[in-house]
Amino acid sequence: MRTVLVTGATGFIGRCALEPLVRRGYAVHAITRNGANSALSAGVQWHELDLLARDRTAMEALIAELRPTDLLHFAWNAKHGEFWSTPENLSWIAASLELVRCFADHGGRRFVGAGTCAEYEWSGGECREGDTPLRPATLYGTAKKVFFEALAAFAGEVELSWAWGRIFLLFGPEEQEARLVPHLIRSALLRQPASCRFGQLQRDFLHVADVADAFAALLASEVEGAVNVASGTARPLGEMVERISQCCDGGEVLTVERQQPGPGEPLVLAANVDRLRNEVGWVPGQSLDAAVEATVSWWRQALEARAGRDGG
Amino acid sequence: MRTVLVTGATGFIGRCALEPLVRRGYAVHAITRNGANSALSAGVQWHELDLLARDRTAMEALIAELRPTDLLHFAWNAKHGEFWSTPENLSWIAASLELVRCFADHGGRRFVGAGTCAEYEWSGGECREGDTPLRPATLYGTAKKVFFEALAAFAGEVELSWAWGRIFLLFGPEEQEARLVPHLIRSALLRQPASCRFGQLQRDFLHVADVADAFAALLASEVEGAVNVASGTARPLGEMVERISQCCDGGEVLTVERQQPGPGEPLVLAANVDRLRNEVGWVPGQSLDAAVEATVSWWRQALEARAGRDGG
Repeated sequence: MRTVLVTGATGFIGRCALEPLVRRGYAVHAITRNGANSALSAGVQWHELDLLARDRTAMEALIAELRPTDLLHFAWNAKHGEFWSTPENLSWIAASLELVRCFADHGGRRFVGAGTCAEYEWSGGECREGDTPLRPATLYGTAKKVFFEALAAFAGEVELSWAWGRIFLLFGPEEQEARLVPHLIRSALLRQPASCRFGQLQRDFLHVADVADAFAALLASEVEGAVNVASGTARPLGEMVERISQCCDGGEVLTVERQQPGPGEPLVLAANVDRLRNEVGWVPGQSLDAAVEATVSWWRQALEARAGRDGG
Repeated sequence: MRTVLVTGATGFIGRCALEPLVRRGYAVHAITRNGANSALSAGVQWHELDLLARDRTAMEALIAELRPTDLLHFAWNAKHGEFWSTPENLSWIAASLELVRCFADHGGRRFVGAGTCAEYEWSGGECREGDTPLRPATLYGTAKKVFFEALAAFAGEVELSWAWGRIFLLFGPEEQEARLVPHLIRSALLRQPASCRFGQLQRDFLHVADVADAFAALLASEVEGAVNVASGTARPLGEMVERISQCCDGGEVLTVERQQPGPGEPLVLAANVDRLRNEVGWVPGQSLDAAVEATVSWWRQALEARAGRDGG
């Protein structure tokens, strides 16, 4: 039986990866800084650990004890408004390097990490693994890219099986409220005017549960190297807003503008998903329309529950 | 007064950098894993610290106490036959990232690190910073390159002044005996036959004292980014062997072959030194011939001292 250790397991994506891993037959061990969360998934063993701790002893002891065959590494600073440029990115590279080295030292066989579309040069439209140059414009993108390159060189030396899922845009339950999709959904549900300034920009969106399931499939596969984790279809943000409006019965509160974006925002940021579809054999479990509808339902319930608490 | 903290200060290059830093007016603090070495330079304060320790507390405490304005980072695994591929390269990236982050957090102003010609794509002959693609073929070269890229992105966020000296080939006192130049010198002095198999390969050699002085000059300058640290002249290895033979009165014990090198060994690996010469304003203090002669003298004395000890 394969034993997987999941980092960032209470995070936006990590929490959704647990059930797909259990379903695929892994013995699932999950790391969290925030205390065990037994509600997240049945059959998961929780371990409290801070990967950024000054002292790595606890991390080494946990891996030496569990001797996981597989490692799925989501943990990173993903705080909205901060993650692009925080110096903590350096510590996440460092912690990730120590983690993968320790994992390999203790018999680990397959490592899968979470990369980002921000590793790519963004002027080319469609990003394809191995072809599109890696030229990140941010500290976060650089940090993910340099870890990817170090991982590739290291894995070649120690014969570690590995893959790297590059995530594009995503949305779903529990997303940080200041981010675009939750902001639009909450505004529509609460009948508060909100605007999408760049309705013409085309982006690839995937529901977080699909992102997480794709990572579980990538781990279970033997595919090596970078793999884009996306739907394969870039749609105008304006269409996304329209769909949200429909699902929310939002009437006219959401507006779409077509302002001139900054130089760092390309018109099209699309993912080629040939590797994900043909080599990993994974396709999304739901349409984008269905995924938006499900997400709106989740937010509707969350807002009603909150209103109930506040009213009580 | 500027305070510099030097890592790897008992290493091959680091030990030679102390006097040039003292001479340039820095208050010099040196880190070593191996116990203080007061013989190395007058006016240096030694601190015992293992940068690879599982627990970073001691490193943070030292930097918080000293609050160095400058940091010159030489420490890395440079063990002959091991450094190209050791997994320890990952830990050196991690430790270096934590070091530079901690340094900036505590008011550090200028960071200079030791890079390598092994970061470059080697097929193009002359390597020029900013032009020659970075495409390392080894884990060591990758590790140095990824730290360089993370450093560049980080420095941009926190307004840290920084430079990165890319070292080519070097030689001098205290070099590991299994490496090419000491092997040839010792063989010639001991009248033991030895061979240079690839006499036709052209390489850029610099005496370790010049390398160290160039780093001190680079630190004292305000030059930013990557700077090749080399002589600017690539010479055939066969010429180097000939010069060693002459200095050793070695007669015929050293032979030069012209075997076909492996695919990873280019005919010419040259450094463009425009930045070092024109922006840093540094040129070698001695000719290559004089540097070889001085190194042979050092080895002659070392071997005589050893023979004296063994005989006594």
